[in-house]
Amino acid sequence: MAHVELKSGLAGIIGLFDKFPETAGPLCELAQALLRQPSSLTEGERELIAAYVSSRNECRYCMSTHGAAAKYFLKDKNGELLNSVFSDYQNAPISDKMKALLKIAGKVQQGGKNVRDSDVEAACKEGADDKAIHDTVLIAAAFCMFNRYVDGLSTWQPEGSDIYEERGTILAEKGYVR
Amino acid sequence: MAHVELKSGLAGIIGLFDKFPETAGPLCELAQALLRQPSSLTEGERELIAAYVSSRNECRYCMSTHGAAAKYFLKDKNGELLNSVFSDYQNAPISDKMKALLKIAGKVQQGGKNVRDSDVEAACKEGADDKAIHDTVLIAAAFCMFNRYVDGLSTWQPEGSDIYEERGTILAEKGYVR
Repeated sequence: MAHVELKSGLAGIIGLFDKFPETAGPLCELAQALLRQPSSLTEGERELIAAYVSSRNECRYCMSTHGAAAKYFLKDKNGELLNSVFSDYQNAPISDKMKALLKIAGKVQQGGKNVRDSDVEAACKEGADDKAIHDTVLIAAAFCMFNRYVDGLSTWQPEGSDIYEERGTILAEKGYVR
Repeated sequence: MAHVELKSGLAGIIGLFDKFPETAGPLCELAQALLRQPSSLTEGERELIAAYVSSRNECRYCMSTHGAAAKYFLKDKNGELLNSVFSDYQNAPISDKMKALLKIAGKVQQGGKNVRDSDVEAACKEGADDKAIHDTVLIAAAFCMFNRYVDGLSTWQPEGSDIYEERGTILAEKGYVR
């Protein structure tokens, strides 16, 4: 049971958005700005960073939802690429730039001070610009928030994958505008 | 030096807001909704939770700025109360409700799944309602984001206290509207 009274049947952050609309607005606008507005990273790359950080925080709702959105954008129908990123991104079929950015995201997940100049230099050498570095750090930081929000209030996170696939497809096709 | 090129002389998140206005808007709106809009927690209590979480994440900029805002609201001119919360909140001169909420905030700082039903029940027994529980969890989660954003991009965080006292007073008197 959730730690606050929520409408039944609304999974994860959806129940929180319903009950607390005053913070739902800015949270959705942040996700839209960060994951959908123009960037040197594609929407698929940004959703992949979000899903990766959520998997490291073991947040089933966010990992599955943003994982489904990443699969949509990256045409990874059976989830092979996504699962290889979750289990061992250094040997996943992704670009060297993405490997360097996921290394930064993983460090931010543990704490901001872990990011070294050499981590950023390595990503820039593979073609990451200031916007890519910024977006990687802020996406990783933001999902440390979203994951804690969803788990810290003990929201309903159903098993299975249907609800997450459906929600991920909506996020991919329509974005985060409420 | 920061990990991305920022205007010199702009400390902490201010340099990031200047360079990346597309995310600055929603981030400020989130802070305003969470720390200033009506809640069963006072503005001072909410700034205290923000400062406490930032101190646990060892983010000098956020800890000092929101600490200064908390001191303003709580009329804690010499910072005695604030420092006692940072060092040992269980024995600080704050309400039992705030002690129970800071316990929840500290657990969220480590990870959302750490919050137990018994932690929430203890806070409710001291008078916390659903909104107080929600705001505590989301403030703690949001500062896990803000701290990682500020530190993960290695922003300039000057020593001393003048700049933070000044900024904290502005946040207390004018809020987070840009």
